[in-house]
Amino acid sequence: MKFTTYKQVRFHHCDPAGIVFYPQFFYLLHEVQEDFLTHIGFPEHALIASGTGVPIVDLKTEFMGMCRHGDELTMTLELTKVGNASIGMQYEIHGPPKTPGSTATLKLRAHGVVVYSEIPHGKPVCIPDELRSALLPYLQRIPQAS
Amino acid sequence: MKFTTYKQVRFHHCDPAGIVFYPQFFYLLHEVQEDFLTHIGFPEHALIASGTGVPIVDLKTEFMGMCRHGDELTMTLELTKVGNASIGMQYEIHGPPKTPGSTATLKLRAHGVVVYSEIPHGKPVCIPDELRSALLPYLQRIPQAS
Amino acid sequence: MKFTTYKQVRFHHCDPAGIVFYPQFFYLLHEVQEDFLTHIGFPEHALIASGTGVPIVDLKTEFMGMCRHGDELTMTLELTKVGNASIGMQYEIHGPPKTPGSTATLKLRAHGVVVYSEIPHGKPVCIPDELRSALLPYLQRIPQAS
Amino acid sequence: MKFTTYKQVRFHHCDPAGIVFYPQFFYLLHEVQEDFLTHIGFPEHALIASGTGVPIVDLKTEFMGMCRHGDELTMTLELTKVGNASIGMQYEIHGPPKTPGSTATLKLRAHGVVVYSEIPHGKPVCIPDELRSALLPYLQRIPQAS
Repeated sequence: MKFTTYKQVRFHHCDPAGIVFYPQFFYLLHEVQEDFLTHIGFPEHALIASGTGVPIVDLKTEFMGMCRHGDELTMTLELTKVGNASIGMQYEIHGPPKTPGSTATLKLRAHGVVVYSEIPHGKPVCIPDELRSALLPYLQRIPQAS
Repeated sequence: MKFTTYKQVRFHHCDPAGIVFYPQFFYLLHEVQEDFLTHIGFPEHALIASGTGVPIVDLKTEFMGMCRHGDELTMTLELTKVGNASIGMQYEIHGPPKTPGSTATLKLRAHGVVVYSEIPHGKPVCIPDELRSALLPYLQRIPQAS
Repeated sequence: MKFTTYKQVRFHHCDPAGIVFYPQFFYLLHEVQEDFLTHIGFPEHALIASGTGVPIVDLKTEFMGMCRHGDELTMTLELTKVGNASIGMQYEIHGPPKTPGSTATLKLRAHGVVVYSEIPHGKPVCIPDELRSALLPYLQRIPQAS
Repeated sequence: MKFTTYKQVRFHHCDPAGIVFYPQFFYLLHEVQEDFLTHIGFPEHALIASGTGVPIVDLKTEFMGMCRHGDELTMTLELTKVGNASIGMQYEIHGPPKTPGSTATLKLRAHGVVVYSEIPHGKPVCIPDELRSALLPYLQRIPQAS
């Protein structure tokens, strides 16, 4: 199952070339992560208040198209792995279709690995069962060879 | 040859866990790119004023250690490729040594690919000779098999 | 009439003290301005595309309470002036009530003056009639002495 | 005595109109505050580690001129008040002269009031003597009537 949310390109995301300045995409991806964790019942501020967090250790990003002020973005997240402590997160950002009626345009694809950790010192800890159960429905299903 | 510059972790880079919020690293990397382009005589604001820029198309980042408010960072950039229009950029961020006298700690390694392009529409254009000559001294020398 | 919108305090708004870092409030106020201009039919990206904008010339802010990650904010905007080219904007941010059932807490009050201008050079120009008509319903009504 | 430091307008400070997006000025002002506190021997990260901070309660800003990518800014800070717990801070930002040889241009003037406080809960506490002594040389001297 994919988690889907919608964001708007804001003035403050954009640079002198009139397009989203690339680090701003990571703010948007982090907002998607926040929305996702809230949606599954583990809001990030509650995690942090309880002394854990999900710092990132690896991130690969393909920037496939420019986004502009006012663009409506469709953002999806699904999980590629739920390990002992690490979680693989696959994001996609689609922008508006280039012409009305055509399909949405893939603008960005990113894969991040975060580690469930004690904060602030960052020692990895095993993902608790309740959180794991809430994550698993979003794990990508890899088609099985028959 | 590596380009080296120094940055300080600012209050505004840090998050409620007291560490650099990861998108902020990309602001720092972009500052290194700005400093580098200025150093080689092609300041980014002059490129943009002339109708070109270097939008990013691919970025891979390993986050290897947390950085905290007040940390002094050593940031290096060398080039992995100078193609027709694309430039490969390898960044490293080292933090202060964990104990005085020991070596600096690698905190982040990133590899980005940017494309010399007309802006705002992003059409790739061939890197002009003068810029190419200024870039080449920073191209990584791969040890040759003898 | 007041324009009202709702925003959530995001992880990236917060600092190592766990509260909103004050410059981030101005991103939120600017988002309210964007939402307002869109609501009245003059989205900021369309203004900018047409060669005009509303740069700020004066801003007074009282910070009356801390906001924390996860807080739901109620943000209001009303206008204090619609001049030839300048517009006075009064913002308030209310946070959640301290105890359930009590009233919302005023967290921030700001008054900004923006000037309808040609961009990028910033020459003030007279607010067009259509925009003026769309703004006027949000002008504060000052109680009249009888 | 005025504290003076120099900053450069970075790409990431600028908006689609090609000028500094106004909330970014407050990041720059906060960097000046950080530089100042470090200069007088009380770096902000050490204050925070010791459980105190200087949250802002009031800020008035006049935006007097646009700043652009690549501009070199001269930033000054002097104090208007050192009270029991509150400190008045007067900032000015000057940009490059409009023509070579002419004087620098005043771009922004801001007056902020911060309160020395226990964090994260924000209870004001009396400024310790050592910090007070370090602050006082930067208090504005008001010319005395003779």
